[in-house]
Amino acid sequence: MAIKQVTIIGVGHIGGSVALALKKHARVPRIVGCDRDGVLETARRLGVIDYGLPDPAEACKGSEVVVLATPVGAIIDLIERLGPVITPETLITDVGSTKAEVVARARAVFGDGAGKRFLPGHPMAGREYAGVEHADADLFHNAVWLTTPIAQEQHPRAEEYLSAIAALGTRIVSMDAERHDRLCAWISHLPQMVTTAVAGCLVDEFGDDPDLFAIGGRALREITRTAASPYSMWRDIALTNTQNIQEALLRLEQRLAQIRENLRTRGLEEEFDRAHQIKK
Amino acid sequence: MAIKQVTIIGVGHIGGSVALALKKHARVPRIVGCDRDGVLETARRLGVIDYGLPDPAEACKGSEVVVLATPVGAIIDLIERLGPVITPETLITDVGSTKAEVVARARAVFGDGAGKRFLPGHPMAGREYAGVEHADADLFHNAVWLTTPIAQEQHPRAEEYLSAIAALGTRIVSMDAERHDRLCAWISHLPQMVTTAVAGCLVDEFGDDPDLFAIGGRALREITRTAASPYSMWRDIALTNTQNIQEALLRLEQRLAQIRENLRTRGLEEEFDRAHQIKK
Repeated sequence: MAIKQVTIIGVGHIGGSVALALKKHARVPRIVGCDRDGVLETARRLGVIDYGLPDPAEACKGSEVVVLATPVGAIIDLIERLGPVITPETLITDVGSTKAEVVARARAVFGDGAGKRFLPGHPMAGREYAGVEHADADLFHNAVWLTTPIAQEQHPRAEEYLSAIAALGTRIVSMDAERHDRLCAWISHLPQMVTTAVAGCLVDEFGDDPDLFAIGGRALREITRTAASPYSMWRDIALTNTQNIQEALLRLEQRLAQIRENLRTRGLEEEFDRAHQIKK
Repeated sequence: MAIKQVTIIGVGHIGGSVALALKKHARVPRIVGCDRDGVLETARRLGVIDYGLPDPAEACKGSEVVVLATPVGAIIDLIERLGPVITPETLITDVGSTKAEVVARARAVFGDGAGKRFLPGHPMAGREYAGVEHADADLFHNAVWLTTPIAQEQHPRAEEYLSAIAALGTRIVSMDAERHDRLCAWISHLPQMVTTAVAGCLVDEFGDDPDLFAIGGRALREITRTAASPYSMWRDIALTNTQNIQEALLRLEQRLAQIRENLRTRGLEEEFDRAHQIKK
């Protein structure tokens, strides 16, 4: 009983890439997309989806798996709105960047059986581009795909879905949602906020001074690339992982102040020594 | 009258790479290295230098160009110690990461004629590796090589030396030393301090938790790579560009606090909007 049809709700960069990747690497015969009409038209034209429906409930019909691929805020709303409409035969999963609030909503909607209905997921790939035009069938190659299972007992389709995900070239890593959100605050959300802050400072300090870009090199290209990441996505991450991000930012601010106050003392050596211990 | 012999004082990663690159791409027939005996032995064995002398004054004899390639603190000392010993026929240059204090010392030692004796330089390449073992003849390919000329009138060998540097595949960009140091504080020194701070925080928060590295991806690899940069080099940068780095750190700390306080408000959108203006 292979997966014959998958519905992707939110056919943007990630949703579109999941669609293409499932077709190419997991041989899913039919992908139904759900998004605004204009997006669905583009997605069909680019061969990202086989069929498009703007109504989520309609789009889910007949699919073995429904992937919620909107920003996290909309994922949480969709669990509430769609959850009761989708039959228990269909596995619901998501690709949202934070997991604790997604899991909480799934528990609230599905109750004790939440683990058997919903499998929370988070592919660690893509970020700085928005839009289905950038969808890439190989985006998840060598990427980690995190899952934060709600309970030990899973949906009967879960194993099959995870095999399909593994076929995209991913490494699946499971952990609980709270740990996921704290780790991601440090290794994904904090770096984004830092880059946004640095880019903002550079705009303030140098405007469009050509020397900055003439000599900026790889570091500046990386900053520019990351700083371009869309607010729409990060608003939801910031709203659903506020405390962890706040804590990470505060710790970093304190550490930067310590470095600033010790630029001319041996305290700077201690900071470098500590940093050198990473992955030793 | 092509350059027949160049002396490199400080045969580490950068000095060794300059040596190899000048031989390979600029066809300089003879490179004399000056460093500790053990380093010179390795450099000779690896073919990085043709000849090694531990005494700087001895090592400079007979060379048309002397390149000071130690950390900046030692460069400044060398200008004082070696400057009066080196004949005016020899062009003295450096590859130090900061320039205002280097220029100030050259002015102090050479007086009004400093511009005709000393050409300050700074290749924007390499950083995280120390040691001549990592020397790379192609390190400067596509790199920017900054110069901060002290005066309009240059040493007669300056043009020839810059042609050799261009032959390494570099793009030469000139600016005054103060501007150089301020730009580099923002695009090079600040990013290093931020990475050192982030890596230190990660060590504190997660120790050697394998999940961190399992899911960290490219961002974490980049952090780990940059965090490994040697303190010995950054100590001198911090000591010779303190004010610019302090100012950049303080601005960034303020911006991070602003983001932290606005994770749940539209203030976050303003931060992203500002960051998006970079290189628009």
